[in-house]
Amino acid sequence: MKRLQEKMEQDGRILSEHVLKVDSFLNHQIDPLLMKEIGEEFANRFASEKITKIVTLESSGIAPSVMTGLVLDVPVVFARKRQSLTMTDDLLTANVYSFTKETANRIAVSNAFLSADDHVLIIDDFLANGQAALGLIDIVRQAGSSIAGVGIVIEKSFQNGAELLYQEGIRVESLARIKSLKEGKIEFKEEEPEK
Amino acid sequence: MKRLQEKMEQDGRILSEHVLKVDSFLNHQIDPLLMKEIGEEFANRFASEKITKIVTLESSGIAPSVMTGLVLDVPVVFARKRQSLTMTDDLLTANVYSFTKETANRIAVSNAFLSADDHVLIIDDFLANGQAALGLIDIVRQAGSSIAGVGIVIEKSFQNGAELLYQEGIRVESLARIKSLKEGKIEFKEEEPEK
Repeated sequence: MKRLQEKMEQDGRILSEHVLKVDSFLNHQIDPLLMKEIGEEFANRFASEKITKIVTLESSGIAPSVMTGLVLDVPVVFARKRQSLTMTDDLLTANVYSFTKETANRIAVSNAFLSADDHVLIIDDFLANGQAALGLIDIVRQAGSSIAGVGIVIEKSFQNGAELLYQEGIRVESLARIKSLKEGKIEFKEEEPEK
Repeated sequence: MKRLQEKMEQDGRILSEHVLKVDSFLNHQIDPLLMKEIGEEFANRFASEKITKIVTLESSGIAPSVMTGLVLDVPVVFARKRQSLTMTDDLLTANVYSFTKETANRIAVSNAFLSADDHVLIIDDFLANGQAALGLIDIVRQAGSSIAGVGIVIEKSFQNGAELLYQEGIRVESLARIKSLKEGKIEFKEEEPEK
């Protein structure tokens, strides 16, 4: 997605060969118009699927998911990292291991909002080692829902997350794929021809 | 806002005289179309102000804020409750006391995204005792930004949050105001005539 790549080049900050900071338009400050365009792009890419629900992870997955949900006219459920006090329903949970923090975090979705009738699009802001996406997939499968695929805003293709999802038989649609962050610049993996 | 009130009556669950659970369209599952309408309503109510930025709090404030930001064509900044590993900038912080959990939580915004030139609309999902809104106001004032007002999706008017904000000289626009949750039903505070 060209506009996203341009934005990453213009406003992203490369902190190391592994970290691109996009706090100015995705992770802390959000560009609503870009989110709308991202939502339209995800909706286009999964147009042939009869999506009934979008599942994402708080907090940075929420904005692109809500914009996608608006176009597809389906609800968005965001998995919680912390448990809310009023979250008293039965929960579907998964453990997400963080390699950077070296801890496992429990993420949770109320089982009231996912069922065997659902055909789910999972959306997240980043795909790196794939642990968050795998946790969301685990939760969606526990609910007996089918999975249309995973929509990712920014994929770090030099890490193995996409590979792990392919091994699970999951379709992955990433709007920008970073091949490398070496020498202080973003090298993109060639984009698949758009449908 | 009539549509919001109807949704609250239809899908909200009254857990006690103090707690209305709206996890099915706002706090856990999100209704994107309702969020769009909420965004349009906030944008209308603050149309006379030259808003340059929206500030909210993760996670439930993000969806209504992004929809408002889309209409007003301004960026959204969400304050973080947990500190992100790549959040290495200078931070503006405030402590938010939670009466239910009896703990104070630090919320933070990078000072890169707020300046003295900004005229800020603060948005949050709930207004109860006002501590979260006061924390956001504190942060915006630290940045030297001016405050257009606070937009609230659901105000619990039987708690003192709105009163505390008025005392601070802050304009508050709440789209639904709950007078009482007694006897298992929502009594709304009469809506101001819409402009």
